[in-house]
Amino acid sequence: MTTTENPVRNGVDTATLFATIDAVKADPDLAKFQFRATNRWISGTHNESTIHHYHGAKQEMTHREPFRFDADHPPVLVGTDNGPTPVEYLLHALAACLTAGIANVAAARGIALTEVSSTVEGDIDLMGILGLSDRVRNGYQQIKVSFVVRGDDPEKLRSVVEQSRRRSAVFDVLTNGVPVSIDVDAG
Amino acid sequence: MTTTENPVRNGVDTATLFATIDAVKADPDLAKFQFRATNRWISGTHNESTIHHYHGAKQEMTHREPFRFDADHPPVLVGTDNGPTPVEYLLHALAACLTAGIANVAAARGIALTEVSSTVEGDIDLMGILGLSDRVRNGYQQIKVSFVVRGDDPEKLRSVVEQSRRRSAVFDVLTNGVPVSIDVDAG
Repeated sequence: MTTTENPVRNGVDTATLFATIDAVKADPDLAKFQFRATNRWISGTHNESTIHHYHGAKQEMTHREPFRFDADHPPVLVGTDNGPTPVEYLLHALAACLTAGIANVAAARGIALTEVSSTVEGDIDLMGILGLSDRVRNGYQQIKVSFVVRGDDPEKLRSVVEQSRRRSAVFDVLTNGVPVSIDVDAG
Repeated sequence: MTTTENPVRNGVDTATLFATIDAVKADPDLAKFQFRATNRWISGTHNESTIHHYHGAKQEMTHREPFRFDADHPPVLVGTDNGPTPVEYLLHALAACLTAGIANVAAARGIALTEVSSTVEGDIDLMGILGLSDRVRNGYQQIKVSFVVRGDDPEKLRSVVEQSRRRSAVFDVLTNGVPVSIDVDAG
């Protein structure tokens, strides 16, 4: 582990970050994680997820509190707007993953950040999910992320964003897809 | 539009649902939506998204309030656990989309629901995002959804879940991927 005069940079504890990477390098099983969400239907398109427990670093882990999130459709989509739509949460997840990566990569490289903000836009044609066209896909047709990053030299900042993209879990899932299986206990 | 004695079923206003589908059938431009999230970095891996405005049905629309969500890494991943990780939000989005679809499809088919609950598990090997292996992908290797659905006849309920999967926007994005572009204003 390397110690520096200022191990916390951009709010990232770089000493712990490097120590964590070293620990995983020595024991790759520490890197196997399982994340989980539970969801319960409330009424109509309104439902609520809880995110609390997960598995990682060879043990069961618990977030410091159960995080709960409502999802719903707005009235224009025949819901009651008790929360964002499910597809909007995808945009949030993408911005959050890339932004966390930017902070980590910048800290690891000793690059100062003063601002990271972004807007994510996803275009979707609901002819798909409404069952009105078999030629229109159900999901987003494209997603566009626009970052504003301030701090160090612009070229360094661009390189940090690019490295975050290259190592983003959410970017990978959204652009490459992932196998999803669905089991049903009906009765 | 068909009216029935009980147009609200499982909390779904089926009369409005069918009227909406008819309106979109008559004017497909109503189906073109753009959803958005804005995000700002707070410190380290902690950042916050706001979901408020969107475009749909040929006009700018606004959720009834700005919905805000924190994302962070837990301490084991060198964060401060101010919210779920970005990848956990993907699991929530998937459960929420499938569950809303189950409620809508069941209502449209006149099938009663008394319970819909689910657990979503995503397996991920962090050797990828930590940059320790080029053979391990950054994102989830697989996602498993387990539903418990109660109400009408089990075979009907299974068919409802299957139809929801076939028309789920989030299931489509997660399994098939979507093009994502990233612009950077650095300075």
